[in-house]
Amino acid sequence: MTNLDTLLPSLEGIETITEPNQVAKLSQDYHSFSPVLVPKLAGKVGDIVVRPANEAEVIKVAAICAAQRIPITVRGAGTGNYGQCVPLHGGVILDTTKLQEILWVKPGVARVEAGVKLAALDKKAREIGWEMRMAPSTYRTATIGGFVAGGSGGIGSIQYGLLGDRGNLLGLRVVTLEEAPRIIELRGDDVQKVNHAWGLNGIITEVEIPLGPAYPWAEVIVTFDDFITAAKFGQSLANADGMMKKLVTIFASPIPQYFPPLQPYIPAGTHPAFLILAEPSLELLPGLVEQYGGKITYQKPAKEAGKGLNLAEFTWNHTTLHARNVDTAITYLQSMFPADQSLQLVADLYHYFGDEVMIHLEFIRVNGAVVPAALQLVRYSTEERLNEIIRYHEAKGVFIANPHTYIIEDGGRKVIDPEQLKFKEIVDPYGLMNPGKSKVLEGIGDRGQGTGDRQR
Amino acid sequence: MTNLDTLLPSLEGIETITEPNQVAKLSQDYHSFSPVLVPKLAGKVGDIVVRPANEAEVIKVAAICAAQRIPITVRGAGTGNYGQCVPLHGGVILDTTKLQEILWVKPGVARVEAGVKLAALDKKAREIGWEMRMAPSTYRTATIGGFVAGGSGGIGSIQYGLLGDRGNLLGLRVVTLEEAPRIIELRGDDVQKVNHAWGLNGIITEVEIPLGPAYPWAEVIVTFDDFITAAKFGQSLANADGMMKKLVTIFASPIPQYFPPLQPYIPAGTHPAFLILAEPSLELLPGLVEQYGGKITYQKPAKEAGKGLNLAEFTWNHTTLHARNVDTAITYLQSMFPADQSLQLVADLYHYFGDEVMIHLEFIRVNGAVVPAALQLVRYSTEERLNEIIRYHEAKGVFIANPHTYIIEDGGRKVIDPEQLKFKEIVDPYGLMNPGKSKVLEGIGDRGQGTGDRQR
Repeated sequence: MTNLDTLLPSLEGIETITEPNQVAKLSQDYHSFSPVLVPKLAGKVGDIVVRPANEAEVIKVAAICAAQRIPITVRGAGTGNYGQCVPLHGGVILDTTKLQEILWVKPGVARVEAGVKLAALDKKAREIGWEMRMAPSTYRTATIGGFVAGGSGGIGSIQYGLLGDRGNLLGLRVVTLEEAPRIIELRGDDVQKVNHAWGLNGIITEVEIPLGPAYPWAEVIVTFDDFITAAKFGQSLANADGMMKKLVTIFASPIPQYFPPLQPYIPAGTHPAFLILAEPSLELLPGLVEQYGGKITYQKPAKEAGKGLNLAEFTWNHTTLHARNVDTAITYLQSMFPADQSLQLVADLYHYFGDEVMIHLEFIRVNGAVVPAALQLVRYSTEERLNEIIRYHEAKGVFIANPHTYIIEDGGRKVIDPEQLKFKEIVDPYGLMNPGKSKVLEGIGDRGQGTGDRQR
Repeated sequence: MTNLDTLLPSLEGIETITEPNQVAKLSQDYHSFSPVLVPKLAGKVGDIVVRPANEAEVIKVAAICAAQRIPITVRGAGTGNYGQCVPLHGGVILDTTKLQEILWVKPGVARVEAGVKLAALDKKAREIGWEMRMAPSTYRTATIGGFVAGGSGGIGSIQYGLLGDRGNLLGLRVVTLEEAPRIIELRGDDVQKVNHAWGLNGIITEVEIPLGPAYPWAEVIVTFDDFITAAKFGQSLANADGMMKKLVTIFASPIPQYFPPLQPYIPAGTHPAFLILAEPSLELLPGLVEQYGGKITYQKPAKEAGKGLNLAEFTWNHTTLHARNVDTAITYLQSMFPADQSLQLVADLYHYFGDEVMIHLEFIRVNGAVVPAALQLVRYSTEERLNEIIRYHEAKGVFIANPHTYIIEDGGRKVIDPEQLKFKEIVDPYGLMNPGKSKVLEGIGDRGQGTGDRQR
């Protein structure tokens, strides 16, 4: 237990929160999507929230935590789903949301403080014709530092791949957890030392990130009578290198029932595609839709962006959010299908599980190829059955990045990046950062079926 | 033989050329790259060159040719390599190079007259931060109408695929060959009725084409001691979805000997990669180069674009041009390897043919995947041996688009698109356009080994 009487005076001048309800709230993320994680993380709260307003204050907090050996868990907006920013051993919650300066934006590149919201960067970048290459469905609230520390990709990954792909992250500025904290700038491949390391090895204070051209984006819903046909349409559109898009999402019926505002556009029993396409490519869509026997039921031109419905907010993990708003017994998987134009495995699993595992595909680029990722909705019964479902998928060749664990190695990478461990030794010599999240660091063995989140 | 005494007065007010040397020159393209085509097309010249200055004049020429049943062969800058614009039956050469108006350029899209040079459109588009998505190595002189009628892709295809891919061509305005010519605007998938139809079915007067963002492009040469390693590096860079590039070219030694100005950067016996990368991605290159044991020997920043060496002009079919400048006994193939990350077939053919077939890879996107296309340099001995080489490649699974035929069906598509034939019936009822280039239209049988050009 942190001695707040010692700590608080040393933090003078920096915003702190000690009111228990607020601290409890800021100890949470959206791991509530997982009925497995909820009991495991219940009651895990920090002792105090600290909100530095600039890097100098971050350095001060880091120095104090190092000197007083206080655990520190860094959070952005807390939109993660793996308990990444839930403090397992109390201590300081370092909330980065006041680090909101957009340092500069130029054509193709931006540099921002870690607490900048993704939507805020987008807004600024669009003034000069650019935007973030990719963003999770939580982009309205999520911070860029949180996205780097705990995210992996999202809307835009159909064009640019995942955040961890070479070139999608240019620089990270990191404060070390030492009595005399250092500032380290990571560039080139070195950004991978901290990318998606869950705040285990240094406090990210600045992010330099490449931008993509801000096309005029239109939103479209296309419906199909048959799920596999819908999926094949998705693959075909995703493959169309001449059509610029940032979202190709396919939902198996009955998922759309969880989207009440979209009911007018999705006849019962049909399987929709949710698309975001550059308007210059839009004219080519009807020919492709016709080829697959689909029907365009909704279209919103780019000039109405920001008004009315926002399709992106029904995709990626927001799909799960909407489903759980209707039925809290629903949870989800994160997975990646192998590159196979026939989508045979998608079809097999669709038929095998029926409505127990409702397929939600997100097409993305992976290492130069277009593959369907999936965030299947699962009608949860027991942890055993959930693990059985996961094992069945894995046995068939689907890569599962289990979102029902808070252990980083059990995530998508299966092992913690040795470079990240080496970097941790340098920047966090006392092992204070986000303790309890790594098997290797805790010296614990394999926990069995836990298999983590879907990151590289 | 066209009766010029009848024709010339009717063309009054329109620029015409009848001086035999000039007409002969304007009856040629770069099929001289093929020792097979040269004798077959020798002596094929038009009777007159007509240079309309605007669409009204194009309509006038079309009406006259239709009324007087005069064959008409449309040409841009004549930078093709298949004899596409060589008139087999005399008649009128319609030279489009005076149709030079850039009608409009807006973010992501442009509309231009057919005779606009690719470089001119690029220059204009860059004023607002955009550029052509792809261009052949002849972009300084080639016209956009010629590119659509006879080209297929090039520098930029690593990002956007080929010109025939859905979305890379938005609209075509075509004048029919009738006594009362009509103007037809083709949009959506209908552009394929005329795209790459070699001017057989209508005179393209305007082209609407999507643009890509004009990144600050840097040029880089990387050398490798081993060809297969160089090729694997190329595949790996081409696969890197987060790194924006428009050229990934790999040359087997001894091809670089044909590039005298580049000798200082390519040690003898090494196998170079020629790259054009967006500067925000450049910082990620050294890590990848190191991984494959390569060496960066040349780098030109974007701010020096247009000065000094221009790597693009040594790639695609300019490679063949440079090789033939040194050794006229060299010819080439056009081909596409199957998607296979191991590049086993590339390695097999490299070892099998040795210096007789010098491998020149151009990585491109095809239907959502990154594959190596190739324009191998061939030390020509006889037509029989050339065909034997082609057959060997085909038997191994390499798709060969033989550039040693002037028959459209023998090209990459193997059959003429039935939609193009249907459209020809509508727009060219008298069969006057570029006669002699299609087996189907001439009612002739299979010519044996001829297998055409490399499109779609």
